[in-house]
Amino acid sequence: MSAYHPLTLDEAIQIAQEIPNLFDEQSNLQVREIGDGNLNLVFHITDSNSSKSIILKQALPYAKVVGESWPLSLDRARIESEALILAYQLCPTLVPTVYRYDSELAMTIMEDLSDHIIMRKGLIEGNRYPLFAEHISDFLARTLFFTSDLGQNQQAKKESVKQFINPDLCKITEDLIFADPYVDAETNNFNAAIRDAVEALWADQPLHLEVALLRMKFLTSAQALLHGDLHTGSIFVTEQSTKVIDPEFAYYGPMGFDIGAVLANLALNYIGQEHWSRSEEARASYREYLIDTLRDTWSQFDTKFRALWNEHAVDPLAKVPGYQDLYMQQLLQDSIGFAGCKIIRRTIGLAHVADIDTISDDRVRERAERLALTVGRALILQHRQVTSFDAFIDTLEQATKGVQVS
Amino acid sequence: MSAYHPLTLDEAIQIAQEIPNLFDEQSNLQVREIGDGNLNLVFHITDSNSSKSIILKQALPYAKVVGESWPLSLDRARIESEALILAYQLCPTLVPTVYRYDSELAMTIMEDLSDHIIMRKGLIEGNRYPLFAEHISDFLARTLFFTSDLGQNQQAKKESVKQFINPDLCKITEDLIFADPYVDAETNNFNAAIRDAVEALWADQPLHLEVALLRMKFLTSAQALLHGDLHTGSIFVTEQSTKVIDPEFAYYGPMGFDIGAVLANLALNYIGQEHWSRSEEARASYREYLIDTLRDTWSQFDTKFRALWNEHAVDPLAKVPGYQDLYMQQLLQDSIGFAGCKIIRRTIGLAHVADIDTISDDRVRERAERLALTVGRALILQHRQVTSFDAFIDTLEQATKGVQVS
Repeated sequence: MSAYHPLTLDEAIQIAQEIPNLFDEQSNLQVREIGDGNLNLVFHITDSNSSKSIILKQALPYAKVVGESWPLSLDRARIESEALILAYQLCPTLVPTVYRYDSELAMTIMEDLSDHIIMRKGLIEGNRYPLFAEHISDFLARTLFFTSDLGQNQQAKKESVKQFINPDLCKITEDLIFADPYVDAETNNFNAAIRDAVEALWADQPLHLEVALLRMKFLTSAQALLHGDLHTGSIFVTEQSTKVIDPEFAYYGPMGFDIGAVLANLALNYIGQEHWSRSEEARASYREYLIDTLRDTWSQFDTKFRALWNEHAVDPLAKVPGYQDLYMQQLLQDSIGFAGCKIIRRTIGLAHVADIDTISDDRVRERAERLALTVGRALILQHRQVTSFDAFIDTLEQATKGVQVS
Repeated sequence: MSAYHPLTLDEAIQIAQEIPNLFDEQSNLQVREIGDGNLNLVFHITDSNSSKSIILKQALPYAKVVGESWPLSLDRARIESEALILAYQLCPTLVPTVYRYDSELAMTIMEDLSDHIIMRKGLIEGNRYPLFAEHISDFLARTLFFTSDLGQNQQAKKESVKQFINPDLCKITEDLIFADPYVDAETNNFNAAIRDAVEALWADQPLHLEVALLRMKFLTSAQALLHGDLHTGSIFVTEQSTKVIDPEFAYYGPMGFDIGAVLANLALNYIGQEHWSRSEEARASYREYLIDTLRDTWSQFDTKFRALWNEHAVDPLAKVPGYQDLYMQQLLQDSIGFAGCKIIRRTIGLAHVADIDTISDDRVRERAERLALTVGRALILQHRQVTSFDAFIDTLEQATKGVQVS
C-alpha cells in the first residue's frame, strides 16, 4: 500500500495481518470502523480465534467541525504517534502501546483498550475511579517534568520543540478556546436561554484581559511537551487502570494547560451533577468524590513534580532556594486560569461536553450552564492571585451553593 | 566548489567574481581575511578598479572560546543568513544587504560596511552617535513586533520558530550568561583583585533566584525572533547610519533579551568611563550623552512598539484594554533583568568588553569592575518590581556616585 488514501475495511485487515508477532496465521480477523468520522478513521480489528484485538487509527485530511470541512495536515498523525511513543517511554502503564506507525498512510496501530471506558462516560454514569488521581498525577508529573528544561538536556529539548511544532491543531485551540468564546463568533454554540450571560461575558473587559494573558502564554511558553487536549474524553479508565489517548494536539506549551484540562473536565462533571436523578445524598456524595479527586490530582501532582525535581533536575540553577516554590505557584496559577478558559469554551464554544449537554431538563441544564460560566469566569479572574489549590475548590463549591439557592 | 571546507583567499575571490551584477569583467579583486578566527572566516574583497567591496563570511565548525575548540554546527551560518534576510525585509536600512548564501559552504556574502565603525570602538573613542537611539529602537520595535504573535500570523510564527531552533548557539548563552558566572566555573575570567566581590556573588541566593527565573524565561519564552547577541560589538555605526550584524545567535526568545543587551552595553561603556583620561567635565558630558541614549532607546522603543501594536496587531485579543500596558511593563522588567545578567557576565564571565578591559590603570579598572557588579546585581534583584525606566538610570547613576566617593 503506497500513497495516502483513506483505508477500506479490507485494507485495514490486511495491514493488521502483516504486523509481526501480533496475529498468527490461524487468525480470523474481524474489523469495524468505530470512529465518529470527524478527524480520523478508527478501525477496531479482532481475531475471533484468539480474541486478540488492536486499534488502527488513520488521520483524515480534514476536520468536520465547523459545518464545512476544515483542512488539517496529516502531519498530526506523526505527532500523535511520536507523542504516544514518548509518553510510553515515560509512563508505560498509562498510555496504549504503539505497534506501528506509517507516515505515508498517516496511520498508527496501537493497543486496543475496549476493556476500558471513556472516562467522561464513566463519570456521567456515576462510576468512581479510585486510582485516577494517582495515575493522572503520575502522567502529568512525568510527562511534563521530563520533557521540560528542568528534566531533560536543554539542547535536546530544542530539537523536541522542533519535532512537535503543530500549527494546525494549535490553531483549533487558539480559536476555539482563546478567542471565539469572547466575541460573537460564528463558531460559538450556546443555549439561547443563557444569551444574557453570554453577552455579559462578551462585554467583560477585565475577563478579556486575563484571557489575553493566558492566550499569550499558550502561544509563547514552550515549557513542556503537552498532550494538548487532556479532557476526560481523551482518557480511558477502569477502576484499576488509566490510559491517556489521542495526543494529536501535542506541542510544547505551558504545563498548566494540560493540568487545567483535567481540572476543568472534573469540574464540568461536578457542575453537570445539577441534573442528578438519584437522591440528594447520592449527589452530595458523588460531588464529594469529585472534590477529593480534584484535590488529590493537584496535591499528588505537586508532590510528584517536586520529587522528580529534587531527584532528577538537570538544570544547573534548579536547586536555588525558593525557585521550586515560585515555579509551583506559577503552575498552580496557570492551571487555574486555563481550567477557567476550558470550562467557558465547553459551555458556549463550538464543542460542548456530554456531562452538561445530556441534561434533559431544560431548566436544570440552563442552571448548570450558568454555573459553568460563573465558575469559569471566577477562575480566570483570580488566577494570577491564587496561592493555594483551595481557591479552585472554594470557587466551585461557593458558586454551586449560590446557584442552587435559586 | 562543492563540499564544506574552509575557503582559501583564491577561492574567496573566485566565488565573489561569480556573483551576478556585482563586479564586472574589468574588476581587479583584492582579498584580505579580517576575522579573528574564532568562529568564522571573514574575507574582505575589494575591486581596486571600481572600489566596490563585499564581505564573505564563512562559519568554522568550531569556536575557539574555551582554550580548546568547541564544536559548533555549521547550521548557524544558515540561521545568520536567514535572520539577516528577514531583518532586511523589516528594516532595510539597518542591516547589511545579503547577496548570496551557500548552505554547503556555510557562507554568506554581504554588503561591506568598512565605512562604518564597530560601535563599541566608537564609544571607547568618545564619539557620539546622535541617531543611534532612533535607529536601534526602530530595529528592536520592528524585528521584535513583526516576528511575534502580535505582529504575524500565529501559524506562520510556529514555522518560523522551527526554522530558528538554534541549540548550539543558545547553549553558549545558557552557560556563559545564565549559569557559569554564579558558580566557581572554569570558564569564568575575572580580575583577582575583585575575588571578594565575585565570591559574594556566588553565595548570593536571592540573586540566584532571580537569575534562575530569567534563565527559565530565556529557555522557554518563544516571544519573538531575537538577534540573540545584540551588544555594541554587533553594531556598525557612523553618525548617520546604524547597521546590525552577526545574528548567528538568532532564535525565538524573550524580547527583553535583545533590548537588555543594548542597554547593558551602553551601561558598560558608562561604567568604563571611570578611566576617562580627559577632563572631569568631558567625562560628565559623555556620561550624560550615554544616559540620554539609554533613555531615548527605551522610550522610543516603547513608543514605536505601541504604535506598531495599535496599527498592525493581528492577534484577536490585542486590543483588550490594559493588555498593552501590562505587556510593555513586562518587557521593561525583562529588559532590566537581562541587562543585569549581561553586565555581570561581561565582568566576571568568559567574554569581557573592551570598554572596561582596556582601562590601563589597575585601580581604576578594579573600581569599574566592582561598579559593574553592583549595577548588574541591583538590576537583576529589582527587575520584577520595576515600573519605570527611571529605575535603570537611577541604579546606574546612584551606584556610580557610591563608587566614586571612595
